[in-house]
Amino acid sequence: MSTPSPRTTPAEPGTEPLGTEPLDTVLARATTAAESARRARPADRARWLESVAAALDAAAARLVPVACRESHLPEGRLSGELGRTTFQARLFAERLASGALDDIRVDHADPHWPMGARPDIRRTTVPLGPVLVFAASNFPFAFSVMGGDTVSALAAGCPVVVKAHPGHPELSRLTTSIATEALAAAGAPAHLLQLIEGERTGADAVQDHRVKAVGFTGSTRGGRYLFDLAVSRPDPIPFYGELGSTNPVVVTPAGWAERPADIAAGFAASCTLGAGQFCTQPGVVFVPDADAFFGSLPPLTAGPMLGERIAAGYAAALDDLAARDRVCTALRSPGEDGHPDIALLRTTTDAVLADPSLITTEVFGPASLFVEYGDLSEVEAVLAGFEGALTGTVQGGDTPDEDGRRLLDLLAGHVGRVIWNQWPTGVTVSDAQQHGGPWPSSTAPRTTSVGTAAIDRWRRPVAYQNVPADALPRELRDQ
Amino acid sequence: MSTPSPRTTPAEPGTEPLGTEPLDTVLARATTAAESARRARPADRARWLESVAAALDAAAARLVPVACRESHLPEGRLSGELGRTTFQARLFAERLASGALDDIRVDHADPHWPMGARPDIRRTTVPLGPVLVFAASNFPFAFSVMGGDTVSALAAGCPVVVKAHPGHPELSRLTTSIATEALAAAGAPAHLLQLIEGERTGADAVQDHRVKAVGFTGSTRGGRYLFDLAVSRPDPIPFYGELGSTNPVVVTPAGWAERPADIAAGFAASCTLGAGQFCTQPGVVFVPDADAFFGSLPPLTAGPMLGERIAAGYAAALDDLAARDRVCTALRSPGEDGHPDIALLRTTTDAVLADPSLITTEVFGPASLFVEYGDLSEVEAVLAGFEGALTGTVQGGDTPDEDGRRLLDLLAGHVGRVIWNQWPTGVTVSDAQQHGGPWPSSTAPRTTSVGTAAIDRWRRPVAYQNVPADALPRELRDQ
Repeated sequence: MSTPSPRTTPAEPGTEPLGTEPLDTVLARATTAAESARRARPADRARWLESVAAALDAAAARLVPVACRESHLPEGRLSGELGRTTFQARLFAERLASGALDDIRVDHADPHWPMGARPDIRRTTVPLGPVLVFAASNFPFAFSVMGGDTVSALAAGCPVVVKAHPGHPELSRLTTSIATEALAAAGAPAHLLQLIEGERTGADAVQDHRVKAVGFTGSTRGGRYLFDLAVSRPDPIPFYGELGSTNPVVVTPAGWAERPADIAAGFAASCTLGAGQFCTQPGVVFVPDADAFFGSLPPLTAGPMLGERIAAGYAAALDDLAARDRVCTALRSPGEDGHPDIALLRTTTDAVLADPSLITTEVFGPASLFVEYGDLSEVEAVLAGFEGALTGTVQGGDTPDEDGRRLLDLLAGHVGRVIWNQWPTGVTVSDAQQHGGPWPSSTAPRTTSVGTAAIDRWRRPVAYQNVPADALPRELRDQ
Repeated sequence: MSTPSPRTTPAEPGTEPLGTEPLDTVLARATTAAESARRARPADRARWLESVAAALDAAAARLVPVACRESHLPEGRLSGELGRTTFQARLFAERLASGALDDIRVDHADPHWPMGARPDIRRTTVPLGPVLVFAASNFPFAFSVMGGDTVSALAAGCPVVVKAHPGHPELSRLTTSIATEALAAAGAPAHLLQLIEGERTGADAVQDHRVKAVGFTGSTRGGRYLFDLAVSRPDPIPFYGELGSTNPVVVTPAGWAERPADIAAGFAASCTLGAGQFCTQPGVVFVPDADAFFGSLPPLTAGPMLGERIAAGYAAALDDLAARDRVCTALRSPGEDGHPDIALLRTTTDAVLADPSLITTEVFGPASLFVEYGDLSEVEAVLAGFEGALTGTVQGGDTPDEDGRRLLDLLAGHVGRVIWNQWPTGVTVSDAQQHGGPWPSSTAPRTTSVGTAAIDRWRRPVAYQNVPADALPRELRDQ
């Protein structure tokens, strides 16, 4: 973790420093906003989100160039990501307005309930209060200021304080400025969205009693540090950390026999997409014949990385993994013009059984570790001791055979999303999506940070007992 | 926390020491059981629970006398509690068998999904794995070996290791013995339910990597100690602690004008029920006229406490609270024959504003702190700074007036269950029940430890992407 980059360009209109108010002021404002946000109806919250989505779309021509300059990601990718981001806000808005995100249970009074007469009990949810969101570097729109954590928290009725990622400070300020204007125009409470900057300020906020939950997307090291702060408070709070993941892929014998070209091409694209800077990048691939696999690969290319800090972290992690016992470098294609090396390492199932950390060490960039197996039972033995990941993929034949079924079932015990004959990168936003998994991929395996179920992280149930209809929250009344 | 009581009676048949296997053996067995339990269908799990419920009911004549002897609770209460316990197991069984506890989301493939073509994604849940449950002292059946934590975890498909409460060791062993026999008879995996004893063993288990989640019901101090262990692991795990709660009750001016006798009688019963040893005992009561309230009370009586340790803890906590600045003892009726003192303390809203801990300090026993107010706005100012509780109650007039509505709404921001004109003790088991709330009443405010929603604590979502129908878990297939 580092300090924010110094600003090197004069402020443009709409990019005035937003992250400079004292933390105490920011959190006092968030606490006030929480009271209004809690009382707002779902339809109101939907309007806020729609207003922000429209404003961000309308400002694409201002936003995307700043994102390109700060993230070094290509314009097409960033335009697409902005589209994903505003789609996501609109999806929450639509689901809020339709009532699909309500979580309601009603038990009418029942004098004959077997354990004794039951009072009328009706359960709904209330927002947790001010939420702190740590933005990620690798999705300057979709996991940053107005990303999934923020829109799901706003949908739940929580004010959001975003800790800007130092990799794109100007974009963070510009996005915040556009979003807060749009929120005001839609009648949202003042200070529903605020920006803070600086690692120290972020860590202080995690420990402040006015913050009621934290969302984080980033490294295991940084996430663990903040998780420890959150759970060590006198009043511990939920910490939703989406951390590192190695996303194992198993190529079955049938898969390699029936679909070798498909699999090789699919891997090449998924491994290097976004210069490998995705939490769902396929970092570990089990193959029956590594030489044949490498021989089938198309040329691999990757764009520049997000920044120097991430590039240096990638190089160091790659060198460390490559230097481990019984790990060989099968391919290392030197990057030019500041692009990263692309690397394919290889090892054996025996080596992984001896050192399971080989397949849980995330190398954030365009590199994958190939584990060659003789028999699938070796892979199953290795995966039985696997900690956890966001995703697990089976590349099988055209239809699932016994091997494929067994592996899907095995992986379901260790990951949040199992995939058949597709690749883990490219995480759609939908109602059934699950982005989260057992430690170390997440600090909260029961939750998702992508998809509409993400709203559940920011609210808690409240039951109303024996409350007359006209004093109940509207959504709990009969009809 | 103390060590288990030494066994003073020779073992009866069915009470042979169950908690004496080495922890390593217990957890290895639980890990093996987890694989089978995960694959069992909901209907199978339902049969296991029904079998246990029937066996416990059939053994009531053996169980209840042991419970009476160890807990000092009256026979009628314990028979009723056993009924509650087996009802609870049957309710989970019924809901499992009907599919009501499935948590399924299906997104069919959609080439026109606005953010880009969407693959087929279907989400279900998988059990977390072996679960550790710390039994409570005050419900020797309903929050102990086969209590709500255990049955909800078994319903989710998790093996359970119960840490016996030292207050009722014989009953814990007998219950385990009857339950494990019933599980075996119903074809459940071996070692699905196991018992361990001893504080040190329990703490060791919390830190063992094979334990995937912990349920706890008990004191804030003990719960916090174990919570800290769980979240400090190299692989932190969910810790569901149901801790102390003061359960504020607000008697509004209209309530006191219209229903004084009802309210006084209701308070007297709720305060002293079970010798006040309930996590929902009304520990703090806001009243417009304390003298009038005390003058309206019927005689207060309480049975003996669960054990000497709890009685001593009660006496110390009561003395401590009574000795605080601006707290007076309005009534202290000395207990005879080992029964506890019953105590009513009083203070003012000003005193609470100066020291908010006055109303968050749980005194576990038949005592309540009365806070006299001049105007309801004082109560609202106090409650705005209130940390959290399991319940919050408004005792209003016959129908809710503006005061009543405002207080219900205010309390909903601080508690898990709001109650109108009833009392917080007597927590029904149902689908809409919520037993949990903000810290310090719970370490996991988003969950409940009572009611069918308790199952969600022990399972996590898994999404299946692009998996052909015949390789999907049964519940995810179309139709």
